[in-house]
Amino acid sequence: MNSHLINTSIITIGDELLIGQVIDTNSAWIAQELNKFGIWIKRRVAIGDVRDEIWNALDEESRHADLILITGGLGTTADDITKPVLCEYFGGKLVINNEALENVKNIFQRYLNRPLLESNLKQAEVPDVCTVIQNKRGTAPGMWFDKEGKIFISMPGVPHEMKGMMSDYVLPRLPEIFNLSAVVHRTLLTAGIGESFLADRIKDFESALPLHIKLAYLPKFGMVRLRLTATGMDKEEITAEADGLFKKLQQQLQDVMVINEDKTLQEAVGKMLAEKDKTLSVAESCTGGYIAHLITTVPGSSKYFMGGVVSYDNTVKENVLHVNEDTLDNAGAVSEETVWQMAHGVKALMKTDYAIAISGIMGPDGGTEQKPVGTVWIAVSGKSKTLTQKIFVRYGRLINIENTAIQALNMLRKFILEEKS
Amino acid sequence: MNSHLINTSIITIGDELLIGQVIDTNSAWIAQELNKFGIWIKRRVAIGDVRDEIWNALDEESRHADLILITGGLGTTADDITKPVLCEYFGGKLVINNEALENVKNIFQRYLNRPLLESNLKQAEVPDVCTVIQNKRGTAPGMWFDKEGKIFISMPGVPHEMKGMMSDYVLPRLPEIFNLSAVVHRTLLTAGIGESFLADRIKDFESALPLHIKLAYLPKFGMVRLRLTATGMDKEEITAEADGLFKKLQQQLQDVMVINEDKTLQEAVGKMLAEKDKTLSVAESCTGGYIAHLITTVPGSSKYFMGGVVSYDNTVKENVLHVNEDTLDNAGAVSEETVWQMAHGVKALMKTDYAIAISGIMGPDGGTEQKPVGTVWIAVSGKSKTLTQKIFVRYGRLINIENTAIQALNMLRKFILEEKS
Repeated sequence: MNSHLINTSIITIGDELLIGQVIDTNSAWIAQELNKFGIWIKRRVAIGDVRDEIWNALDEESRHADLILITGGLGTTADDITKPVLCEYFGGKLVINNEALENVKNIFQRYLNRPLLESNLKQAEVPDVCTVIQNKRGTAPGMWFDKEGKIFISMPGVPHEMKGMMSDYVLPRLPEIFNLSAVVHRTLLTAGIGESFLADRIKDFESALPLHIKLAYLPKFGMVRLRLTATGMDKEEITAEADGLFKKLQQQLQDVMVINEDKTLQEAVGKMLAEKDKTLSVAESCTGGYIAHLITTVPGSSKYFMGGVVSYDNTVKENVLHVNEDTLDNAGAVSEETVWQMAHGVKALMKTDYAIAISGIMGPDGGTEQKPVGTVWIAVSGKSKTLTQKIFVRYGRLINIENTAIQALNMLRKFILEEKS
Repeated sequence: MNSHLINTSIITIGDELLIGQVIDTNSAWIAQELNKFGIWIKRRVAIGDVRDEIWNALDEESRHADLILITGGLGTTADDITKPVLCEYFGGKLVINNEALENVKNIFQRYLNRPLLESNLKQAEVPDVCTVIQNKRGTAPGMWFDKEGKIFISMPGVPHEMKGMMSDYVLPRLPEIFNLSAVVHRTLLTAGIGESFLADRIKDFESALPLHIKLAYLPKFGMVRLRLTATGMDKEEITAEADGLFKKLQQQLQDVMVINEDKTLQEAVGKMLAEKDKTLSVAESCTGGYIAHLITTVPGSSKYFMGGVVSYDNTVKENVLHVNEDTLDNAGAVSEETVWQMAHGVKALMKTDYAIAISGIMGPDGGTEQKPVGTVWIAVSGKSKTLTQKIFVRYGRLINIENTAIQALNMLRKFILEEKS
């Protein structure tokens, strides 16, 4: 069976997923890992810890899919009824698995330093009709069932336990079971252009794509990531094909492309700074440290990021960044003059090559008629030039902060690019 | 129909959810909002932008549920085929909705300053068999369908657009349609105690709860939110009951409780500072601005938060925060002495009553034998006292940053509490 023909479903079990306690990050991880093998998720179903719901989902998903991955419902609390249901569904009986039992005992002895309870020992029970997947990171074993040509794999919902089982056991077995295609991904990040405009610009490119090459639009915070995925039997052939198309795509999107790798904007900016051996500092008012946070989420950012000042109060703008009192009194904290002075202030204070400065009104309160909520001034300053820009953001407080940060980082990116040429 | 009998399904549509590029945060939000009305999600299904899949999901979920909420698939790209499928499924034809058209034009004129494309105008088309839900935050309108006693509501997948439609339109209409029970929530936030230990401490309380009162554990970043939900026909009665139980719960958890409201730690700390009319500044090295960011996500934080210094580079610790060169050379940047001096430095610089200072190694690189990755020093300083603490964080870079920030804020909270007594 070719990879793209392997229909796959994910069933997640657990009340905590349905009442909104826990956001399901497992499914996205599983999907990404399977995509590397050219296997696409067809459906994903979340259900509660209810016998009939589980039974029903097993029935339904086996009609939709060849491979059914099940996560959750294998804990020690009373709610977790998945194992007995699986046992009944696949027509087995529960037996103690010795290796799993040793594992449970080991974990209690080495890490938990508590007596074993009856409920803990029960973790080592598995249906006698499954292949046991040992859990190196927790007490609940995984279970692999084959039924009428379909594969069902049940794993714990704890992310690192599930990921461990997938990486150690499940993923390496996929090529043995399925006749997998080769898969090649090429990703680029764009900024400053909406999804629909992007789609319009490359509609000829997109409609000319052969069937085995897909283009995905992945928008976030006003940026769109574009991913080309080529699938085929000959890896060299599809690599060449994907590279050729990716080059074309880059040419068409030169003006809006941030980076031609699967990287974030802060990674792209960091890479530019590191390559040029330049340093950066930031002066933030309304973004309150978020730009510094984004920059420092990148490992190794200490190479180019010296630091920042969060000048939330005007006294800090004045005393630390040396913004003129007159400017604050007359032009105001949210003004071109203020961000210009903030940028120069922080650049001098931290002795950096570049600086970003931000001042604005994020809401919900604090707006005036002249300067409504959402008004933001940005300054980007380099060796001999400083650019300023006024933008408007118009959503909730947190999204306004995030959008402003992205626009400021992109402004710096363009600023550095233009210096080059 | 009583609230707990209203079976509800969520269908999320979009390839981006199945290829794992986007994590579905919408469903958790919807679940939490519906829970407030005593409505619980029974199933959640994610499918791709495929006609048959969508049709099939509509069929299947209408067998499972009375209320079917659909998000995603309403963008302007070629992939988004949800609207025509819905139109066909509910037996209508697409017509231009004038109010939606005005909205599209307005958004382009006011915010985007770009010409309208054919694909943008198409956003204003809706099936003539639905009630249109106008979108105040984007171009794609929502659609409300009634069919054979079941309600289907289709909304965009963009989180703030979906949330806006739910809050403005869908949620207020639920009491008109369903005979909803009264629901009362009481929430408290704990810190410094794991979920299983918490469960163990209150297991008698929990097992004595009547059937119509549920206790939910909502863990995040080493904190656990506990939510009591009482459902019943008599609002006064269940309110009294919930309040009595909530009082008991607070008594049992006094030592680990952060706040007895549905607030975040940063809101709790902000409330304490505002009430005492005190101010705060922060000096951050390894958390890179994240603590300042958390504090400033709270509207009105400018009342008590003066600002911060992100002293990522040692020269900034020295020049801006006046940490001794000797200290940095001998004790090192990640040391008790350094965070002590950072806290005093920023407190003096920004003239605040309190200060937090952080220095540590977030990974993946930068650790040594004496100071492995995950070593973090925290200082909290007040008028006449400074406390320092060394902690270890042990996950990925981002989670380490988040955990450190939470521990530092909680340390400040306790510091202020102890001053009181």
